Amino acid sequence: MSLLVVGSVAFDAVETPFGKREKILGGSATHFSLSASFFTDVRVVAVVGDDFGEEEMSVFRERGVNTDDLERVPGGKTFFWRGRYDFDLNTAHTLDTQLNVFADFRPKLSDQSRAARMVFLGNIQPELQLGVREQVRGAELVALDTMDYWIESVPEQVKAVVSSVDVCIINDAEARRLAGEPNLIRAARKILSWGPRALVVKRGEYGAAMFTPDTYFAIPAYPLESVFDPTGAGDTFAGGFMGYLAGHEQVDDATLRRAIIFGSVMASFNVEEFGTERVRRLTHDEINRRFRDFKRMTHFEEIPFERAARTTQ
Amino acid sequence: MSLLVVGSVAFDAVETPFGKREKILGGSATHFSLSASFFTDVRVVAVVGDDFGEEEMSVFRERGVNTDDLERVPGGKTFFWRGRYDFDLNTAHTLDTQLNVFADFRPKLSDQSRAARMVFLGNIQPELQLGVREQVRGAELVALDTMDYWIESVPEQVKAVVSSVDVCIINDAEARRLAGEPNLIRAARKILSWGPRALVVKRGEYGAAMFTPDTYFAIPAYPLESVFDPTGAGDTFAGGFMGYLAGHEQVDDATLRRAIIFGSVMASFNVEEFGTERVRRLTHDEINRRFRDFKRMTHFEEIPFERAARTTQ
Repeated sequence: MSLLVVGSVAFDAVETPFGKREKILGGSATHFSLSASFFTDVRVVAVVGDDFGEEEMSVFRERGVNTDDLERVPGGKTFFWRGRYDFDLNTAHTLDTQLNVFADFRPKLSDQSRAARMVFLGNIQPELQLGVREQVRGAELVALDTMDYWIESVPEQVKAVVSSVDVCIINDAEARRLAGEPNLIRAARKILSWGPRALVVKRGEYGAAMFTPDTYFAIPAYPLESVFDPTGAGDTFAGGFMGYLAGHEQVDDATLRRAIIFGSVMASFNVEEFGTERVRRLTHDEINRRFRDFKRMTHFEEIPFERAARTTQ
Repeated sequence: MSLLVVGSVAFDAVETPFGKREKILGGSATHFSLSASFFTDVRVVAVVGDDFGEEEMSVFRERGVNTDDLERVPGGKTFFWRGRYDFDLNTAHTLDTQLNVFADFRPKLSDQSRAARMVFLGNIQPELQLGVREQVRGAELVALDTMDYWIESVPEQVKAVVSSVDVCIINDAEARRLAGEPNLIRAARKILSWGPRALVVKRGEYGAAMFTPDTYFAIPAYPLESVFDPTGAGDTFAGGFMGYLAGHEQVDDATLRRAIIFGSVMASFNVEEFGTERVRRLTHDEINRRFRDFKRMTHFEEIPFERAARTTQ
């Protein structure tokens, strides 16, 4: 298999100014794998409870996502998150978190999972990420996501796992906090000095940026007139990014740049409806159309300024 | 003359985490005209007091900025602003504002000024902007800037002057507030419906975007490891943007896009040192080098995704 994701599979209850859903499929591994499935074969390592039924499983199956390593705990309940977004949709207010079976999650990788060419460590406890990292030593490319909560509570663990991966995919505020540096460019340089070959910074409505030791790439977000539910946008971005990379033999700078665009395209679809609703029925044509839109909205001709003759200099 | 700016010429006292200056040259018309002077001939309509001396005048002279319409009020004092930036440099905290001669500023345009091909209405009282707008009816392109203060206190006046110009150059929060719409894309559509052919949105460290009735263009900001003093960045951006346009016969979409880049380039230099210090000693080579950097940092190849054959669809 080409791509493996370790993360959460969950039920979400989401309320936004535009509507609400009581119990929908969510979780980092869910959003990631559905997004990546448009580009490559993807395999999920996660845990669910007895309440995770056929309806939820069919979402993965329809997208060809391999769930052989999706552990089911008898008598257990699936991770549940309830959140609310206010009018600006920028901040998720957590109203309830029930870890349930996720509290004792110890990722179990089958031989097939350990043989993955690329691996994404979704936002889980950094020690668990590090444990998985050690089981996939042969992987060509390992990436991770993390969050403020871990950066604040176990910064040294986060630093250890960041140092062990190839690509770090986090948001703007997390990058600044992780590096302890308010300037993003300096924060990026510091994080790269720990080991990763690339830092991808998610900036929500402002787009995304990628830092490597000697290049910088940045793009705006796809302009959307209505954002419905931002839940899972970051994981959907990572899924498009990693999925696109996994479909390519070579991961050079040009491929990484296109991967950022495809990640952004996928995230732009994700936020248009609740949960996984929009991504589930996406088509490759829709994806490529929005990819071409990105080219149109960022293109300019490279014609330097030549001053015409004039009186004053 | 090709380009006219009406705005403030001021003394600033600025304190940032990196240092302070007690009395330096500032004001919207100052930053705008110095920036524009690298691209075209520019003329300033503003007012100063007796305290505005030879040293300050020489800054304009050295950049070839025409100050024939810079009114000097005998016995008056020049507009003075004192501000402080905290560690993140995003917000200017105003500590003192002394309008002085600026309180009674009534822009007086000579015949030469009224004949300008392009005009920038810097951030002054909207009624004054409208008065100037009416005096330059023959101008090919008129742009304006405004600020939260006017949008809140005299929204109808702001709307009237916005409706009368060709290009509106404001920041992100101002665009949302002006339109009364939290989604920027919808806000832009609403503002364009009032009349302007383009809305340019300044996003600080996140770059800039341009909306026209049928196109969208967005770029990130130039990545800077140290921002020293953001004062005047918006006017410096507008100066580069309008200056570049004024140097061209045709203002089509491709020219507008390059103008956004040159505006961003100029703003990126402005914030590297206090006040006008960095822009004053800029060279065209430095400008063009950073313009090319923008191309490098936003470029990606337009290769849509083609799925390789695989077992599951």
